[in-house]
Amino acid sequence: MNTVEIIRKKRDGQELTTAEIKKLIRGYTDGSIPDYQMSAWAMAVYYQGMSDRETADLTMAIVESGEQVDLSQIAGIKVDKHSTGGVGDTTTLVLGPLVAAAGVPVAKLSGRGLGHTGGTIDKLESIPGFSTELASAEFVKRVNDDKIAVIGQTADLTPADKKLYALRDVTATVDSIPLIASSIMSKKIASGADAIVLDVKTGEGAFMKEEADAIRLAQAMVAIGKHVGRTTVAVVSDMSQPLGYAVGNAVEVKEAIDTLKGEGPADLTELSLMLGSHMLVLSGKYGNAAEARKALEQAIRDGSALAKFRAFVVGQHGDGTVIDQPDRLLQPRTKRKVLAERDGVINKIHAEEVGLCAMKLGAGRATKEDQIDYAVGILLHKKVGEPVKKGEPLATLYVNNEEPVQEVEARLRSAMEIGTEPVTPPALIRSIVTEAGVTRV
Amino acid sequence: MNTVEIIRKKRDGQELTTAEIKKLIRGYTDGSIPDYQMSAWAMAVYYQGMSDRETADLTMAIVESGEQVDLSQIAGIKVDKHSTGGVGDTTTLVLGPLVAAAGVPVAKLSGRGLGHTGGTIDKLESIPGFSTELASAEFVKRVNDDKIAVIGQTADLTPADKKLYALRDVTATVDSIPLIASSIMSKKIASGADAIVLDVKTGEGAFMKEEADAIRLAQAMVAIGKHVGRTTVAVVSDMSQPLGYAVGNAVEVKEAIDTLKGEGPADLTELSLMLGSHMLVLSGKYGNAAEARKALEQAIRDGSALAKFRAFVVGQHGDGTVIDQPDRLLQPRTKRKVLAERDGVINKIHAEEVGLCAMKLGAGRATKEDQIDYAVGILLHKKVGEPVKKGEPLATLYVNNEEPVQEVEARLRSAMEIGTEPVTPPALIRSIVTEAGVTRV
Repeated sequence: MNTVEIIRKKRDGQELTTAEIKKLIRGYTDGSIPDYQMSAWAMAVYYQGMSDRETADLTMAIVESGEQVDLSQIAGIKVDKHSTGGVGDTTTLVLGPLVAAAGVPVAKLSGRGLGHTGGTIDKLESIPGFSTELASAEFVKRVNDDKIAVIGQTADLTPADKKLYALRDVTATVDSIPLIASSIMSKKIASGADAIVLDVKTGEGAFMKEEADAIRLAQAMVAIGKHVGRTTVAVVSDMSQPLGYAVGNAVEVKEAIDTLKGEGPADLTELSLMLGSHMLVLSGKYGNAAEARKALEQAIRDGSALAKFRAFVVGQHGDGTVIDQPDRLLQPRTKRKVLAERDGVINKIHAEEVGLCAMKLGAGRATKEDQIDYAVGILLHKKVGEPVKKGEPLATLYVNNEEPVQEVEARLRSAMEIGTEPVTPPALIRSIVTEAGVTRV
Repeated sequence: MNTVEIIRKKRDGQELTTAEIKKLIRGYTDGSIPDYQMSAWAMAVYYQGMSDRETADLTMAIVESGEQVDLSQIAGIKVDKHSTGGVGDTTTLVLGPLVAAAGVPVAKLSGRGLGHTGGTIDKLESIPGFSTELASAEFVKRVNDDKIAVIGQTADLTPADKKLYALRDVTATVDSIPLIASSIMSKKIASGADAIVLDVKTGEGAFMKEEADAIRLAQAMVAIGKHVGRTTVAVVSDMSQPLGYAVGNAVEVKEAIDTLKGEGPADLTELSLMLGSHMLVLSGKYGNAAEARKALEQAIRDGSALAKFRAFVVGQHGDGTVIDQPDRLLQPRTKRKVLAERDGVINKIHAEEVGLCAMKLGAGRATKEDQIDYAVGILLHKKVGEPVKKGEPLATLYVNNEEPVQEVEARLRSAMEIGTEPVTPPALIRSIVTEAGVTRV
């Protein structure tokens, strides 16, 4: 069957065979199938969708388009965690040491931030000396010794995904559940994950604005995991306001340290415990989420989680003294308080806008080539539902470059809406999606 | 609005503005909009359709992408006729002289054949000496003097259509009514037509297999005509079996001459009178179709239609003696009769297969570069519904190259199905579509 016939078959709502999907992705990767056929196919998928089997086949075809990370030298079941991207999402920095402290290996490949969302690699690199470029043998040794290592992606993983994503971006075919699901899952599987815990964000600051769409995406990814033998659990969580209080790099590391000490923001702590307990269960070391959660809470209480973070930082050549003296993290030249202009209650904190404000200060990238300033960012002082008095600080800006400050102040003030009526803060955890189905929380 | 946003707007079922459609077609023509965006847009159009206004805008944007023929030096309303393509469709050769004999100018740009369908230019060129490459001034003079001239397309008309059609062909986006309708209408409008009569074929040998689709296409084209001030009438006619008996080039010229003498096949005669009478009405010279039809019948009876054909041939440097001595048309080396293998009734004549058989003999092109043999072709002796005896000839093959004959004989015999029960021949004229609506015949 030639490419036109494959496009026509999908166009007409028929299911493609495994061989047809492989042919498409192989041809697209090697350049024998041109962009204009792939974009027509992607638009047909936008309308017709894909069955769970087709989506799993697409995922594996994308995995097979490039190199695959071999984690077989690391003992135990390797459970990876992935977030669909949020603002102030410090969970990986908290989760990693927490899960490792509970004896489960964390061998993680992470990415950099783009646009309003941050990236774990950038956050870790804000720790003086920290290296995210370990050689393969050192990476494996670190995980076997300390149960945790996090590195940037160096191998040529999922080239088909990179090419297809760039094409979808310019042909209005990004918003397709099977295409998003296969893109995310292919990267996790190529990174060597045996099992996967997903944090699917929903709300204004997330890619999936609507909860129903987030659940559909979660279901599609859990189904892929089931089809390809990588048990997957997805937590659908709120991203209508930033997670925690810190948005930036060094400032988020500080928040992660606080959280590992048991002094972190309630939402960041809760989400870390929730995701971490599912990771422990998938690792096979814990029988159920409640038992796993207890182990994680214990690791915070007894200091072993914080000790694990120190070992992790030192193991990757970072300055371990930052754990006890967070002021040794990069500090900005000045801090500027953004004050409330009236009494009231925080009604909304537009997460995407807060992320863009942090980017504007230098904490994030508008394009892939931009340099990041690790010291700058935003520390919120209020979350949705909290009362505020006129003149009280809403947030503190961590500033090195004064130029964008005036604009950022104004935008941040608008992003933190003050109302007159009390509001209930949005629920943090919305649903848990497993192979057994969707549990609304 | 950038191209991605235009694609997204159409993807989401919204109506594009005139400016957006112009931007798209201009950008695609000048190369600033790449194929991969255009094919994604075409697939979105496949699913979402286009409003009559959008389709008319698309048509005019395609017209404006290239040169336009100026027929203003020709007196009167120029009415063009277009067929969506059939097998043995000799109507233009009959219609042209008929309508011209009734005093209405026929200034026609025609095309060559491809695949199983023939082209008027090829058929005319089978007349010794006939030239379809007249200079512009000569073309105008011929129409003003004799009321008829037919030439091949030389100017760079509708380049956007050529580019878009080639793209649609390889991205499974051909079967979209607004895209087909705008493609056809843009060519007619760029060719200088003031009004248009369309012959939309339906049935197995046609592009539109289903009558409902043919009617939808006819309606879309009539709506475009209304929007752009070119009154359009469409006749939906049968192409489940070939039109007339002759399939080829010289053999179809002979059939056209017979028809202009009043001795042609009933279906070819009827369709020519039907299309011709609508052309006369649109020209403004006749008040209604019945009156116009009488004038055409009279032109056949009194020999003026045949005389007009002679003037047309001679005017374009052809050998006029073929009209009285059709044997002077190119003759094949041999004629081979295909005999019936049993008694019965002709149940079906698969039009597309007959067209492909004629192509195989050399009468048509598989690719644009192929050479045509004007002398060869097929002459059917039976049409659907006619009884046949074993050993009686079903058809005569006009042969120069013996090589494909055995295969063609076998395929043609299969294409002409003989049943045991009487069948009613398919109705020739199905519907007439005008701005006032659809009239089922």
